[in-house]
Amino acid sequence: MDKQLEAARKFLKDNVRQMVDFSQTAQNRRVPPPPIEKPMPEEAKTIPLPVIGKAKSAGNIDLWSAIGQRESCRFYADEPMSLDELSLLLWATQGVRLKLDAGHALRTVPSAGCRHAFETYLCVLNVESLDKGIYRYLPLEHALLCSHAPEKLESRIVRATLGQRFTGDAAVVFVWTAIPYRMEWRYGLAAHKVIALDAGHVCQNLYLACEAIGAGTCAIAAYDQDEMDRLLDVDGEEEFTIYLAPVGKKG
Amino acid sequence: MDKQLEAARKFLKDNVRQMVDFSQTAQNRRVPPPPIEKPMPEEAKTIPLPVIGKAKSAGNIDLWSAIGQRESCRFYADEPMSLDELSLLLWATQGVRLKLDAGHALRTVPSAGCRHAFETYLCVLNVESLDKGIYRYLPLEHALLCSHAPEKLESRIVRATLGQRFTGDAAVVFVWTAIPYRMEWRYGLAAHKVIALDAGHVCQNLYLACEAIGAGTCAIAAYDQDEMDRLLDVDGEEEFTIYLAPVGKKG
Repeated sequence: MDKQLEAARKFLKDNVRQMVDFSQTAQNRRVPPPPIEKPMPEEAKTIPLPVIGKAKSAGNIDLWSAIGQRESCRFYADEPMSLDELSLLLWATQGVRLKLDAGHALRTVPSAGCRHAFETYLCVLNVESLDKGIYRYLPLEHALLCSHAPEKLESRIVRATLGQRFTGDAAVVFVWTAIPYRMEWRYGLAAHKVIALDAGHVCQNLYLACEAIGAGTCAIAAYDQDEMDRLLDVDGEEEFTIYLAPVGKKG
Repeated sequence: MDKQLEAARKFLKDNVRQMVDFSQTAQNRRVPPPPIEKPMPEEAKTIPLPVIGKAKSAGNIDLWSAIGQRESCRFYADEPMSLDELSLLLWATQGVRLKLDAGHALRTVPSAGCRHAFETYLCVLNVESLDKGIYRYLPLEHALLCSHAPEKLESRIVRATLGQRFTGDAAVVFVWTAIPYRMEWRYGLAAHKVIALDAGHVCQNLYLACEAIGAGTCAIAAYDQDEMDRLLDVDGEEEFTIYLAPVGKKG
């Protein structure tokens, strides 16, 4: 077999575990765990999100219907998303159920070793009472951090997704970044496959949660890495884009 | 940074796409798509599963409750799972909604390029009216294929999961294999990250579906690759284990 292909397939196997000296992971060298959530810049502007109990009136559905009806959706109505709806989507994908300590929290999705190596960025294009721009979800506070407001955001997101025009028609584009050290702290070289598996868990909840509020999504794994990282203003080394999902009301 | 770590992180990025000459993928060279489902051996014994409409009486739940209540579960009641319940879990994770042609079917989970590069094996330990053994799910037929019945199955699955004893206490262990060519056919070297993302989609639906039937699961990414592939009787090259999830009624 082609050597590159063989190496790529290896990533999906678990032989790597046998190469890891777990006594030498940061966790087992007693390095404190990295924070649950990326620290906020000083004087950051945050926006509280509707509390989940109240937001739930925005819609619900039974599980079998959500699973049975889900399909990839690339056409969106020109209709704003409400803050209640956005609040539910964020809670369903990365919400914190219980903070255990400075390095551990239980969320609405499972993660290998409770590491939760993601941050959620939103490219907001058409959400009630939010200006267009890039935001970051703060799961511990259930709030949004206003990050920055790039010019011509629609065309920037389309370009960063290699011309997939439906990203510019969405009400909001979810962009997940990985902070790989959060997982490497515990698993060393066995960290990376499980980060990708975890990103799938998160995105599946987004698909289902969309069904509850009459919205649709279509996950995107084909994107310009550098362009996307620049758009979010992340460094591309210790934090980088891993997966995206534009969301909008069904047309 | 450590070179191995850097290479591993690279797997999670999308720079690889720029290395792929998509005009040379099997799909673009007009090679017919691989089959949706691994072919059955001749004279295989199959067992039809309860049809989904009827099986649904085994339980349901609203989506927000399923998402909010889900947690990893490693303790299982010594209680058999019914065939209705198993039927629902299989449908929720890999069920076919619509067969499009010999190479494409829409399922209850999304997959990059509609490639669905998985097979689902079951290590059945305590399911009503099924003998202990290894089975394979046939999504097109919504049926089970009886594969083989290894001796001392409980201890084999515990050993193959590196001593994680709760796998031997489950009613059934879901084991997903990847057939990477199904995805490589379309994406070449850009196939492997999306296979891992897709496996996360599948497993998240299993977590949620368990909530509907009073069962629990805890996904496992730490396993002995060779031992696990041997237990399933797959070749470890063109098909290999990628993810596992033991399931049982909550204790």
